[in-house]
Amino acid sequence: MRKSTDFLIIICLFVFLFVFSEMAFAADKDEDLLKITRGVLGPLPSAMTSDQNSITPEKVKLGEILFYETRISVDGTVSCARCHPFSLYGADGLRKAIGHDGQVNPRNAPTVLNAAGQISEHWIGNRQDVEDQAKQSVLGAATFGMPSYEAVEKKLREIAGYPPLFQKAFPGDKDPMTPDNFGKAVGAFERTLVTPSSFDAFLRGNKEALTDTQKRGLKTFMDIGCVTCHSGAFVGGQMYQKFGIFELYWKYTKSKEIDEGRYVVTKNEADKYVFKVPVLRNVEKTAPYFHDGSVDKLEDAVIIMGKIQLRKDLSTQQNEEIISFLDSLTGEIPTDALEVPLLPSME
Amino acid sequence: MRKSTDFLIIICLFVFLFVFSEMAFAADKDEDLLKITRGVLGPLPSAMTSDQNSITPEKVKLGEILFYETRISVDGTVSCARCHPFSLYGADGLRKAIGHDGQVNPRNAPTVLNAAGQISEHWIGNRQDVEDQAKQSVLGAATFGMPSYEAVEKKLREIAGYPPLFQKAFPGDKDPMTPDNFGKAVGAFERTLVTPSSFDAFLRGNKEALTDTQKRGLKTFMDIGCVTCHSGAFVGGQMYQKFGIFELYWKYTKSKEIDEGRYVVTKNEADKYVFKVPVLRNVEKTAPYFHDGSVDKLEDAVIIMGKIQLRKDLSTQQNEEIISFLDSLTGEIPTDALEVPLLPSME
Repeated sequence: MRKSTDFLIIICLFVFLFVFSEMAFAADKDEDLLKITRGVLGPLPSAMTSDQNSITPEKVKLGEILFYETRISVDGTVSCARCHPFSLYGADGLRKAIGHDGQVNPRNAPTVLNAAGQISEHWIGNRQDVEDQAKQSVLGAATFGMPSYEAVEKKLREIAGYPPLFQKAFPGDKDPMTPDNFGKAVGAFERTLVTPSSFDAFLRGNKEALTDTQKRGLKTFMDIGCVTCHSGAFVGGQMYQKFGIFELYWKYTKSKEIDEGRYVVTKNEADKYVFKVPVLRNVEKTAPYFHDGSVDKLEDAVIIMGKIQLRKDLSTQQNEEIISFLDSLTGEIPTDALEVPLLPSME
Repeated sequence: MRKSTDFLIIICLFVFLFVFSEMAFAADKDEDLLKITRGVLGPLPSAMTSDQNSITPEKVKLGEILFYETRISVDGTVSCARCHPFSLYGADGLRKAIGHDGQVNPRNAPTVLNAAGQISEHWIGNRQDVEDQAKQSVLGAATFGMPSYEAVEKKLREIAGYPPLFQKAFPGDKDPMTPDNFGKAVGAFERTLVTPSSFDAFLRGNKEALTDTQKRGLKTFMDIGCVTCHSGAFVGGQMYQKFGIFELYWKYTKSKEIDEGRYVVTKNEADKYVFKVPVLRNVEKTAPYFHDGSVDKLEDAVIIMGKIQLRKDLSTQQNEEIISFLDSLTGEIPTDALEVPLLPSME
């Protein structure tokens, strides 16, 4: 009787030790994962600041109003919000954005959320920053389609409510209704469009913020090399990279034409098929994918990326786990941005 | 000395009586104005109910989401919100609404605010109610442009998030994703779009809610006969009327073509140039004016109405006072409607 009790105690001890060590191991693993992750990715800042454009409440307010302003486009139907509606996480769900009079843009409209955190704007980096992007968009042949900045200014001045709003937003300026200030106001608003998610909670130390599947996906995302390009707080947007390192991209996407990418900007042979690495924040919500929106489903996009960028055939499980991790990048859109502003009256 | 004191007292008494009677007279005048006004106009209801379509929170939520849904239009750019953005008080600021691929609609887009309170929808009353309007708009050649209801249903079913939302909104239906239910959901949302203003406060008895100028404008509005057609809680929307009773309308508007109005629907000679009397709620915010948006300024629209509907040449003062009254019809858009809903994901 005594012996069997001893035996039971020993068994219990072993079970206890095993469970405890497993837990410790898991905790260690989470700690390791967190450490590695923090080395290459990072939590979002509270706003995307700029030395050239301070974020003031007055500028943000004006910028949000201008973001919805259709009356300054050539046909009166285009605003920033048309191709970047927050109802669809700041993108438009189209392969390629459509501007005034049904004009089709050369590329897919990337989400405006977190966009200000990138090294440049547009897929081929031909816009310096969000201010530059906003300013130039009003002249875009397939966006607002206005013939000149003077014409935009004229339309703005016809709306009686704007002069005082510009005055408030740019108190130092004698004549603040300029195209540059239009860009600065919209840019200041866009610099507030940060969308923290459960991934940020994890990065800040809450190890329960990600599920086990998401943790495995995150590990794979780093192990196989996705993070080499999709790095930093925005999980992308920090460099240019050739689309199709191991294979020609259009053999895998459903691209209808071959886009030479950044070569269009630099005319440098090395920039052929090079694009800005997109931000993966909210990627689950911003289908379709790639510069031409040629791929509808995220699972297909991930498989293609593995194949042509990393020469890796992802297993179904790896793919599912990576997508599960990518889901953790879907964040909260700032409440202010989800509120439709009332535009100033004409009279 | 005694005499002069008596004299002073008598003077004081007279002054007092005069001031008091003036005040009493003004109070009487306000009371009279209120009484007359209540006989022909009225405060807005809290919602615009319908026996055929109950307003439930689930239906309203789905309806609001569908109101922003662009992915069911033929080019992916048209939603209800495109021509009825709340940023511009539910209208679009265009002479004539522009739908998919730059298609121009035959008439101006009236505001969706308070629209459900009318006898019918569209300028020529060819839509029964907001449910009918919403349902038919998806097939509109210059709106959503879809080839058939089946095609719309197919697009809706491709968006994974919709079936459960329809199920919740129409719990009794076996297969709730129908065009009729699309109309009912959007309709239920639109039935909540009531915009009470200072005029309603006045109608409910707060005599200070209108300025003296606005009261004079209101009085003129009733005295000269505007209220004969622009009647009821919505200040319009309750009858059809010939546009141009005393003169041909196109001699005064800047119309580029002659619109035969309701004749197009009924083929009845008496309906030539007859249109639904528009709701004047928020009229100050929804330029340009008339069925073809041919007049930019409210002051011009009021002058034209006086001239061709009432054979009256309004003085500048009368015009200003009427416009001041019309300003009191600019109301508060419901907070819920000003919040952009997040649309369901494709997967």
